[in-house]
Amino acid sequence: MAGELARRGYKVVFAPDRREVVVAEGSTVLDACQAAGIPIDSVCDGKGKCGRCKVRITGSYSADESALLTESERREGIVLACLAKPQGDVRVHVLPRSRLTRHQILTTTVEEVPEPITPWSSKVFVEVPEATLADNTADMERLMRTLGKRSLSVTLEALRELPDAIRKGGWKVTITLSGLSGEPEIVRVDPGDTRSRLLGIAVDIGTTTVVVELVDLLSGKVLGTASDYNRQISRGEDVIARMMHSEEKGVEELSSLAKETINSCIASLLAGESARSGVEIPARDICSASVAGNTVMTHFFAGLSTNHVRLEPYVPVAHHLPQQSAGDLSLLMNPAGKVLLFPSRAGYVGGDIVADVLASGMHRSKNLSLLIDVGTNGEVVLGGKEWMMACSCSAGPAFEGAEVSCGMRAMEGAIDRMRINDDLSTSYHVIGDGAPLGICGSGLIDLISEMFTHGIIDRKARIQELGDGRTRPSESGLEFVVERGPKLGGGGAADMVITDADLQNLIRTKAAIYGACAVLLRKTGESLEDLSRVFIAGGFGYHLDIERAISIGMFPDLPRKKYRFIGNGALGGARLALLSKKRRKEAEDIFERMTYLELSVDNEFYDEFSSSLFLPHTDTSKFPSVGGSGGKA
Amino acid sequence: MAGELARRGYKVVFAPDRREVVVAEGSTVLDACQAAGIPIDSVCDGKGKCGRCKVRITGSYSADESALLTESERREGIVLACLAKPQGDVRVHVLPRSRLTRHQILTTTVEEVPEPITPWSSKVFVEVPEATLADNTADMERLMRTLGKRSLSVTLEALRELPDAIRKGGWKVTITLSGLSGEPEIVRVDPGDTRSRLLGIAVDIGTTTVVVELVDLLSGKVLGTASDYNRQISRGEDVIARMMHSEEKGVEELSSLAKETINSCIASLLAGESARSGVEIPARDICSASVAGNTVMTHFFAGLSTNHVRLEPYVPVAHHLPQQSAGDLSLLMNPAGKVLLFPSRAGYVGGDIVADVLASGMHRSKNLSLLIDVGTNGEVVLGGKEWMMACSCSAGPAFEGAEVSCGMRAMEGAIDRMRINDDLSTSYHVIGDGAPLGICGSGLIDLISEMFTHGIIDRKARIQELGDGRTRPSESGLEFVVERGPKLGGGGAADMVITDADLQNLIRTKAAIYGACAVLLRKTGESLEDLSRVFIAGGFGYHLDIERAISIGMFPDLPRKKYRFIGNGALGGARLALLSKKRRKEAEDIFERMTYLELSVDNEFYDEFSSSLFLPHTDTSKFPSVGGSGGKA
Repeated sequence: MAGELARRGYKVVFAPDRREVVVAEGSTVLDACQAAGIPIDSVCDGKGKCGRCKVRITGSYSADESALLTESERREGIVLACLAKPQGDVRVHVLPRSRLTRHQILTTTVEEVPEPITPWSSKVFVEVPEATLADNTADMERLMRTLGKRSLSVTLEALRELPDAIRKGGWKVTITLSGLSGEPEIVRVDPGDTRSRLLGIAVDIGTTTVVVELVDLLSGKVLGTASDYNRQISRGEDVIARMMHSEEKGVEELSSLAKETINSCIASLLAGESARSGVEIPARDICSASVAGNTVMTHFFAGLSTNHVRLEPYVPVAHHLPQQSAGDLSLLMNPAGKVLLFPSRAGYVGGDIVADVLASGMHRSKNLSLLIDVGTNGEVVLGGKEWMMACSCSAGPAFEGAEVSCGMRAMEGAIDRMRINDDLSTSYHVIGDGAPLGICGSGLIDLISEMFTHGIIDRKARIQELGDGRTRPSESGLEFVVERGPKLGGGGAADMVITDADLQNLIRTKAAIYGACAVLLRKTGESLEDLSRVFIAGGFGYHLDIERAISIGMFPDLPRKKYRFIGNGALGGARLALLSKKRRKEAEDIFERMTYLELSVDNEFYDEFSSSLFLPHTDTSKFPSVGGSGGKA
Repeated sequence: MAGELARRGYKVVFAPDRREVVVAEGSTVLDACQAAGIPIDSVCDGKGKCGRCKVRITGSYSADESALLTESERREGIVLACLAKPQGDVRVHVLPRSRLTRHQILTTTVEEVPEPITPWSSKVFVEVPEATLADNTADMERLMRTLGKRSLSVTLEALRELPDAIRKGGWKVTITLSGLSGEPEIVRVDPGDTRSRLLGIAVDIGTTTVVVELVDLLSGKVLGTASDYNRQISRGEDVIARMMHSEEKGVEELSSLAKETINSCIASLLAGESARSGVEIPARDICSASVAGNTVMTHFFAGLSTNHVRLEPYVPVAHHLPQQSAGDLSLLMNPAGKVLLFPSRAGYVGGDIVADVLASGMHRSKNLSLLIDVGTNGEVVLGGKEWMMACSCSAGPAFEGAEVSCGMRAMEGAIDRMRINDDLSTSYHVIGDGAPLGICGSGLIDLISEMFTHGIIDRKARIQELGDGRTRPSESGLEFVVERGPKLGGGGAADMVITDADLQNLIRTKAAIYGACAVLLRKTGESLEDLSRVFIAGGFGYHLDIERAISIGMFPDLPRKKYRFIGNGALGGARLALLSKKRRKEAEDIFERMTYLELSVDNEFYDEFSSSLFLPHTDTSKFPSVGGSGGKA
C-alpha cells in the first residue's frame, strides 16, 4: 500500500530547509509546505488572492497564472505556492518574505500584581486518621470527615488518584480545589504536602499570535512566557477569511489549530519551568486558565459556529461562556481545571477588549478615558467608572502588513522605524538588523508621516510626481521607491515601493480608527478636552511612535503625556483575572456595563470616517499641534 | 505483515459454531474462544482452577494436566480451554455446559410508578424573538432573556447545537436540562417542540449480569429491558477474583468491560425503540441514568481501584459518588447527561442493597422488616423507618452454580425445580425443556430439601449409604446420582451427581445467610416474631420455592405470607430514583441511616453460623413448621 501511494505522489524537496515530503497528485506546493511544517505566509487561505506565498520552484509542475506576480518574478520561476501543483518531483525555495519567522510578538503587558492574590484554585493539606477495621469508612468520606464537610464535589480523576495518594503520603495528602462559580471541586490529590506550588496560565488568543504566560498563583509572578503564530493563519489571515473557511469546512479544524498553538506554548513553558526548578512539572499541575480573545477566536477555541457572526445581523452563539473544564477544551492542563473565557460584548468587540479595559484600569476612574486597540481589527472604548461605550471599526489589517504591497508583520527583516532624508532617500531600522524585506505597521506610519512632511504625498495621501527618480509611474498609478532592489534582502531585483493604492488602504485604516474615536465622543456628548487618558493597546503598541500617529491623524491631537501604552492588554487582563477575585468581578462588571455601538449602519460614523480620509484631517483645527498642511501641488 | 502473522499463528475452527479464528502461538483455546466471540464459562479468570471451560479438541495441541477432568473426559479428548494451547490447526467443540447461553436474567422487579414523576432531566420549549441588527445579542443570551434568567449553565456541546437548532426551528427550540444537584445545566438543544419525548435509563450492574431498562420519563413506563452477562465474567466469576485481576492488570480493562456490557444493552434498547416508534432515536436523547451495583461493581464502573476493598480493613475509595457526567463514564447517552450512582454503605454492602431497600419500601414502615438479597454474595438488612442495620455474609456463589460439581447458572439446560420419587429417582423441570446439563440455585435447594426429606442426607447434610444404586462411594466421599448419564444433554457419558463436598458448600452458604439474619436480630435485641415482612431480592428470587428454602433452614421459619419477592430490587430501586425526586431523597436517607455490621470479625456471627450448619438448624425449635428431623442413621 505504501509503495502504491508513493508511486501516485511526488517528492517535494525544500531548500534550504533540507526537508522533503511526498504529496499526492493534485496537492499544491502550499499543501506540501504545511505537510513539511514549513511556516509560510498565506493570507487568503490558499485562494490565490493575497500573493503572499511566493516560492521559487524547479522541476515538473503546473501553476495557474496570477496577476500578483511581476514579470521579473515569473522569469525567475517564482510562483504562488497555492496555485502551483507538482507534476513530478520538485525543488522549492520559499522566499524569505513569504516565510513566517519568529517575530516580535507583543508579550509585554501590565505588571500589576493584585493584592490580595485570590485565584480560583487552591490547595489544602489534610492529615487523615489511618483506616482500621473499627473505622473502615471510605477514603473520600474519611477526607470529608477530617475537613468537617458533609459533601464535597470531586472529579472521577481525583477520586482515582485518592487511594494511592493517601497511602503513599502516609495518610497525608494535598487536595487541589478549583471552581469559578458555585462550590469548588477537588480536581487533584497529591501525596504529602505540595502546597508550595500552584500554577495557572493566562492566554491571549490573537488572530495573528497566541501568547501564554505560566503564572505562579502563590506569588503572582510570571514564571515564563511563550508565544507563537496562531496556526489558523494558514486558513486565512483575518477573521473574515477564517469564518468563511469554517463555514465551508466546519469549525473543528480551526478549533484544533487554536488549541494546538496554545498547547505547544504550554508544553514549552512546562519544559522550561521543569528545567529551571529541576523537578518534572506535569501538565496536571496547571489547574486554572484565563483566556482572552476576540469573539471569533473565542468561538473557534470553544468550537462554536461563527456562521452567524460573519453576516448581518452579526449574532454570536454566546457572549458569556460559563466556566468550562479544561478537558472539554482539550487544553494541556488538568482536565478538570476550570477555564475562564473572557466574555465578548458583541460580534466584533470581544473578550480581548474587556481584558484590555481591565488591564487599563479605566473602568475604575472617575475621569473620562479612551482605549484604542489596533490589531488585525480596530476597537475603541470610551468611558470610565460610570459608563462605557465600545465599537469596532473594521480598520482592516493594513498596519499588520496585509493589503499593502511592501507591508509585512513586525518580524525579522521588517522596517519598524523610518526617516526620509532631504534627498528623499530613506534611513531605517530593520528588526534583526539584516537587509529589509518589508515594512511593518510602525514603519508604515513613519513612512506616511515622513512622505507628508516632505511633500511627497498631498493631504489626500496621493503621491506627487516630483521628477526626482524616487516617485514614478507604475501599473497602478504613482509609486514611491522606499529602497532600491540591491539593498533588499530576499534576493529579488525589484525595488521596494509604496503605491497610491497602498496608501489609500492605510489612510482608510487610520480614518476608521480616528472616526471611531470621534463618533464615540459625539454620541456621548463628550469632547476631546474631557479625556484624561488615552490607552493604546494591541499588536504594535510598543513599536509605535505616538507623535507620528498623531501627525497622520490616526490618534487624537492631545497632550502626549495623556497617552499610555498598555501593550498586550488582553494578556494583562487575563492574568489579572487569573490572580484576583476582585478583578474577575470587575471583568464581569465591564462586560455588563459596556454598551456596544454598531458602526456598520451608522451615518455619523460614515461622516467622521470621510472627514478623516485627509492628512491629518479635513478640519485641520482638530490637529493644532500638527504643523504644515503638506503637499506641494 | 498479515501473512507473517498468519504463518506464526494457528487456525482454530469452532464446531458447531462454524466460526474460525487465527491465534498467535502461545495463545490458549480460551483466548481463541474470546477472539471468536463464543461466550464460554470461565470462573477463575483462566487460571485452570474452576474446571468450567471444558472443550473437546482435535488436532495438534498441548494441554496441562488438570485434576478437574475425569478419566473418561480425558479419554474423550476433553481439556480445559484455559490450559490447552494449539500447536497447529485445531478443531474445538465447546461442551454445552461450558457455554454461556442467554439465561433467565431476573429483569422483573417492582412495578410502582411514583407520583408525581420528577426526574432530574426536563425539557422546556422556548420561542425566542428573531435577531435583528437592532437586537443582535447572542443566541444564548437571547435564550436566557426569554426565559428571564440572568445566568444559566450550558454545556459546550449544547452551545454548539444552539445556533443551528434555533434557526432550523424557526426561532423555536426545546432545551433539555439535567442536574442532580445544584442548578441544572442545558445539555441539549433541539429545533422545534420535542417535549413529547424524554428518556432515561435504569441500570443494575450485577457481578454476573447487567440489566438495563429504557424508561419514558414522562409516563414512568418501561419502554424496554435488555440484559446480558457482565463481560467481566471472563476475568473471574466473583468479585474477589476480579479484584485480584484488577490489582494485577489495572482497573481499566474491567471498567471498559462493564461499560461495554451496559452500552450494548443501551444500543439494543435504542434500536428496539427506534423500530417501534418509527423514528431514529439517537443516544444523545438519553439524558439521565440511574445505576445501582455492589461496591466492587460500582468501583469498576467508575474506574476506581478496589485494591483496598479486598483486604482488611476493606476500605472503598468512596461510598458516595457525587453526580457524574455520562461522558466521563463513557456511557452511550448524552455525554452531559447526569448519572446517579447509588451510594455504597460499605465494601460489601453496596448501592444495590440501598436500591433493594428503596424498592422494598421497608424504610418507610413503622414495623420491623428483614431484607435478604442472595446473589453472588448474600446481604441482609434489618430495620424500618427508625433505624436499619446491614451486613454481608460472604455466602459465596454456591447457589449460582459455582463450587458445586453439578451446579450451573439459571440458564437453558439447568434444572430449576426438582422432586425425588419414592424409588429415589428424580423428576425435574429443565429451563428450555431440553435434556438437563446441570442444576441451578432453586433446583439445588429443592434437591437438598428432598434428599433430607427422603433421608438420603442426615442433619449434617452427609450422604447416607443406602445401598440402592443412587448413593455410592466416589473419589471424594459419597455421592448421590441425580440423573443417569444417557438422559443428560451435552453428550457426556458420566452421571450427574452431587457429592458430600458439594453439599458442604451449599450448607455453608445457607448457614451464612441464616446466621446473618439471626445475628442482626440478636444485635438489635429484636426477635423473629417482631418481623412483619421478609423481602427476598436478587438473582434467584422468583425461581425460589420459599417452602423449600425454609425447610433447609436457609430462611427463618415464619408464616409464608410474610414473605415478599421483590425480584431485581437493585433495578427497581434504580428506576424509582430515576423517576422520583422523593425516592432519590429516600435513597440518600437510607444510605445515611443504615449502619453497617462487619461480620468478618464477629464472634456472635460465628456462633450463629455454626449452629446453622445443620438441617434445618441445631436448634430445631427455631423451625417448628419443618417436619421430621430427617436422616435415617
